[in-house]
Amino acid sequence: MKYGVMRPGHVQIRVLDMADALKHYCDLMGLIETGRDDQGRVYLKAWSEVDKYSVVLREADAAGVDFIGFKVVSEEMLDLLQGRLVEYGVEVNEVAANDLQDCGRRIRFVVPTGHTFELFATKEQTGKWGISNVNPEAWPRDLKGMGVVRFDHCLLYGPDVPATAKLFQQVLGFDMAEQVIAPDEDKTLIAAFLSCGMKAHDIAFIESPESGQFHHSSYYLETWEDVLRAADLISMTDTPIDIGPTRHGLTNGRTIYFFDPSGNRTEVFANGNYHYPDHEPITWTADQLGKAIFYHDRVLNERFLTVTT
Amino acid sequence: MKYGVMRPGHVQIRVLDMADALKHYCDLMGLIETGRDDQGRVYLKAWSEVDKYSVVLREADAAGVDFIGFKVVSEEMLDLLQGRLVEYGVEVNEVAANDLQDCGRRIRFVVPTGHTFELFATKEQTGKWGISNVNPEAWPRDLKGMGVVRFDHCLLYGPDVPATAKLFQQVLGFDMAEQVIAPDEDKTLIAAFLSCGMKAHDIAFIESPESGQFHHSSYYLETWEDVLRAADLISMTDTPIDIGPTRHGLTNGRTIYFFDPSGNRTEVFANGNYHYPDHEPITWTADQLGKAIFYHDRVLNERFLTVTT
Amino acid sequence: MKYGVMRPGHVQIRVLDMADALKHYCDLMGLIETGRDDQGRVYLKAWSEVDKYSVVLREADAAGVDFIGFKVVSEEMLDLLQGRLVEYGVEVNEVAANDLQDCGRRIRFVVPTGHTFELFATKEQTGKWGISNVNPEAWPRDLKGMGVVRFDHCLLYGPDVPATAKLFQQVLGFDMAEQVIAPDEDKTLIAAFLSCGMKAHDIAFIESPESGQFHHSSYYLETWEDVLRAADLISMTDTPIDIGPTRHGLTNGRTIYFFDPSGNRTEVFANGNYHYPDHEPITWTADQLGKAIFYHDRVLNERFLTVTT
Amino acid sequence: MKYGVMRPGHVQIRVLDMADALKHYCDLMGLIETGRDDQGRVYLKAWSEVDKYSVVLREADAAGVDFIGFKVVSEEMLDLLQGRLVEYGVEVNEVAANDLQDCGRRIRFVVPTGHTFELFATKEQTGKWGISNVNPEAWPRDLKGMGVVRFDHCLLYGPDVPATAKLFQQVLGFDMAEQVIAPDEDKTLIAAFLSCGMKAHDIAFIESPESGQFHHSSYYLETWEDVLRAADLISMTDTPIDIGPTRHGLTNGRTIYFFDPSGNRTEVFANGNYHYPDHEPITWTADQLGKAIFYHDRVLNERFLTVTT
Repeated sequence: MKYGVMRPGHVQIRVLDMADALKHYCDLMGLIETGRDDQGRVYLKAWSEVDKYSVVLREADAAGVDFIGFKVVSEEMLDLLQGRLVEYGVEVNEVAANDLQDCGRRIRFVVPTGHTFELFATKEQTGKWGISNVNPEAWPRDLKGMGVVRFDHCLLYGPDVPATAKLFQQVLGFDMAEQVIAPDEDKTLIAAFLSCGMKAHDIAFIESPESGQFHHSSYYLETWEDVLRAADLISMTDTPIDIGPTRHGLTNGRTIYFFDPSGNRTEVFANGNYHYPDHEPITWTADQLGKAIFYHDRVLNERFLTVTT
Repeated sequence: MKYGVMRPGHVQIRVLDMADALKHYCDLMGLIETGRDDQGRVYLKAWSEVDKYSVVLREADAAGVDFIGFKVVSEEMLDLLQGRLVEYGVEVNEVAANDLQDCGRRIRFVVPTGHTFELFATKEQTGKWGISNVNPEAWPRDLKGMGVVRFDHCLLYGPDVPATAKLFQQVLGFDMAEQVIAPDEDKTLIAAFLSCGMKAHDIAFIESPESGQFHHSSYYLETWEDVLRAADLISMTDTPIDIGPTRHGLTNGRTIYFFDPSGNRTEVFANGNYHYPDHEPITWTADQLGKAIFYHDRVLNERFLTVTT
Repeated sequence: MKYGVMRPGHVQIRVLDMADALKHYCDLMGLIETGRDDQGRVYLKAWSEVDKYSVVLREADAAGVDFIGFKVVSEEMLDLLQGRLVEYGVEVNEVAANDLQDCGRRIRFVVPTGHTFELFATKEQTGKWGISNVNPEAWPRDLKGMGVVRFDHCLLYGPDVPATAKLFQQVLGFDMAEQVIAPDEDKTLIAAFLSCGMKAHDIAFIESPESGQFHHSSYYLETWEDVLRAADLISMTDTPIDIGPTRHGLTNGRTIYFFDPSGNRTEVFANGNYHYPDHEPITWTADQLGKAIFYHDRVLNERFLTVTT
Repeated sequence: MKYGVMRPGHVQIRVLDMADALKHYCDLMGLIETGRDDQGRVYLKAWSEVDKYSVVLREADAAGVDFIGFKVVSEEMLDLLQGRLVEYGVEVNEVAANDLQDCGRRIRFVVPTGHTFELFATKEQTGKWGISNVNPEAWPRDLKGMGVVRFDHCLLYGPDVPATAKLFQQVLGFDMAEQVIAPDEDKTLIAAFLSCGMKAHDIAFIESPESGQFHHSSYYLETWEDVLRAADLISMTDTPIDIGPTRHGLTNGRTIYFFDPSGNRTEVFANGNYHYPDHEPITWTADQLGKAIFYHDRVLNERFLTVTT
């Protein structure tokens, strides 16, 4: 958090049908609805999050991701980061406060992979859902479905991952926690797992020719047992599965991938590597990409390459 | 155990190279070598088993299974079962004591699917490996690899599963714990999971035109966490994986399939359904076969049909 | 199951207040109410059980256990067992069909420890709760609280455990799966864990001067993770805890003990040893009783000796 | 990490007998010896740590903790922090580089509770033990005993926790992640769980009259299953147990406490809360202290108050 960027604070996901989407994100995954706005957007949070929401669903004609917002420790740091972006030559726009419900002003910019990001410092804090902040119980009893713990990160596909990673590292103070490099002499970066705290990734990119593609949004579970429970629920609800339960080589997470009714991929996972700023990036070579992504199968399934845009 | 058949007591598996096979069954899976004979066969056991061995490896030109032996409670019951087989019209042969090391006489017969089975009542008991029978510790500390708990069952492919199941039920006192039935009017049995005790299967058959095929031998683990550990070890040792970690619909086991160096499939699994004699068979219909076998993917992977003969 | 005794089929527990008891057995533990009778008794089952009920609660002035019934494979076997009891010199009484709701005639007798047991062969089968017997899902989604899988066994305190164990072994065909023996020359049996199938215990006794005491009824969970979840729920509901999460030395179960509002102890546990008829009893010596009961603490907590009568 | 303090980098623990201590920290817990110095100190690390060591054992006449060192991101930040300490009125001493093997200069100071702390920025990095930083396997195969993942934090007892916490917060940039407050009007702080990153605690203090007391050093495990395995190993090695397996209310960790041969308490734990700088402290009130510490038992065991000094 060198420059005060704390965590992925929200992602706005496009869905084809809101009612279907809510069955997926709330009934199946256990996110909790905390608001709706006059644009028809629905605001969701995971139970352990203190902010009012972390996932925003917008009904649209095409699936994909609109933008991802990172929360910054203070308005002062937000000013500083805005300055750093401008100085680096990035075009920034300010979105007015309350464009997203109960959220302060957001500083928006587009990175070379074609994805829109935002920084913001203020959002209403409603506290953890279902438990008190004083003498709290271990977990809330009324969670639905998978009962996901928190929105954790996104994985995005697009061109020029090296320039994108450089921006996150040099301007926003992220670390390269884990990476995949090409077999060429320059060891070109083809996948970047970037961390602004102690997690193995707060945002990840994989090199791909088409701009602005969305691979998945990811949510944290506590245990491998929870991953199995998630897998069972995926079957019980006839939800399309991508792959898992399995382990990632990169990040070491215990994971399962599946799809929302619009075709957006969702991940739920548990455990995984931790990162500190003095850690060398963990490096996977492209010839081991299969094992890097799916540690057990050691090959990429063909669905891995599908994305929503 | 209506007629005293207790459990699968041993399986003799053919392997192409004994040294390679021992790396698989001992170093990776954690079976323990307890003997060798002058035919070059190697005898293995899992740590929780009280008998001297449960897996016999024989070096041969083709992989597959030679025979599976069930242990009977007493020599008297063995006589009775021999009589029942003969009365039912099954040709039986007696294999002399000590043909398998430290094992009493075995009553051998072939079932309609083309597989050779044996019944025996006597085998040297060496006790659980690595722990005492008096004031025992919870588990032995020196297990290798996956540390499998016991040899559990086999799954076999062959023709005329209905007649084979009927023999196990009517003559040997097994129950049909779980089954798959065809969509025809007769609800023809196409897969039989037969139990002689409380397990969801002590032996299983799937209908297939070719006689005497071997799908897998299976070994018990205690937990889903152990299944993940097994999956990790499979990757670390570059062992070919079939599928998993996943859950079976049939039997509900938490499972992973992989291959020994000869191409014999191995399963390790945890948990799963229990069975009592007054339970109706759990029934899956053929149109749900994918989900019955692999509960999460809900389709059969193409490798599922490969067998060793 | 030498003489056809399959499993503990029901236990009738006395509770001081039915409404409070139902909060414990249903809301907290996840048993499901399946009937009430004109005596005010309430009938409960765990989800994986095929019989209509396994736990009967009766409101009374004192907590404790009224009787425990074992289910036998057939009415013929019930006749045979009745004969064996009489021949052994045990006084038996027949309780008429439908004295317990939808249950056939029960053969009742008292063992030397002062506890009342019954055998029965017929009870209405309603199938597993919440899942179909055809193409079943892995588990039902609407379970409450701990979601216990099945009623598993009881532990009883009373005098003359040796004679009681002998009756279960010689007359009813149970095995001594695990035992504790005194340091005297005769190695007097002071605790007996008796199995009629493959479980480490279907009924257990500990020597104690007072007749007919009830230590606990026990219910199966699938995993150590479920034991933690149970522990968390015990705290969230201010339920008095006895001890755990911990492991037993005897039986190796992963366990937690707590109390119902009437003071009856409840256990939920997962995993544990399996038993076959050719297994020597696992033996603990009295000097290791602490470790035998609570493998981690290695001492008996003082509450362990409290019982309801 | 507002001022660049990353993590607890080392603890120096006093032990009465080095050989006995190494059985505890290496054979039982799975720390790895990475060095010895001419003072007879032994240097240990956990497998996932990239620095050369995190635990230093020193043979002495009395058990307890000598000092705890926090690693800072850079020498520049170390200078800045030294300045901040001096400005705050804290007496600081510089310990020369290589006083601890392969460690740079350390800035040492004593806090009001009477404990000695250090800051340092440089230590030899030997990488994770047993796995490569390029295409790494999921975990190393040759770990001993519990295979602890990392040194995580210490809990200390001493007077004036409020002033100590204030120093960590205001000077070193730690957050109060979780706390216990007294029932008085001032809501006096009686326990402080302070975080310099995303963990629920990097250092913790409980108010106690005697200065400089050591409650425990704590090591991370991945899962609740690992906590059970640790508990089993504690029994198998006749290691004195304090309490567990259980859950903490504060921090929500899944935990077990036990003692090294010198009487120093050790914790191994898994899971637990995460923290961000914009999170209000999670607060427990003193009347709920039992549940705050041991969530399941809801009372403090008397051993909890024992410490080494």
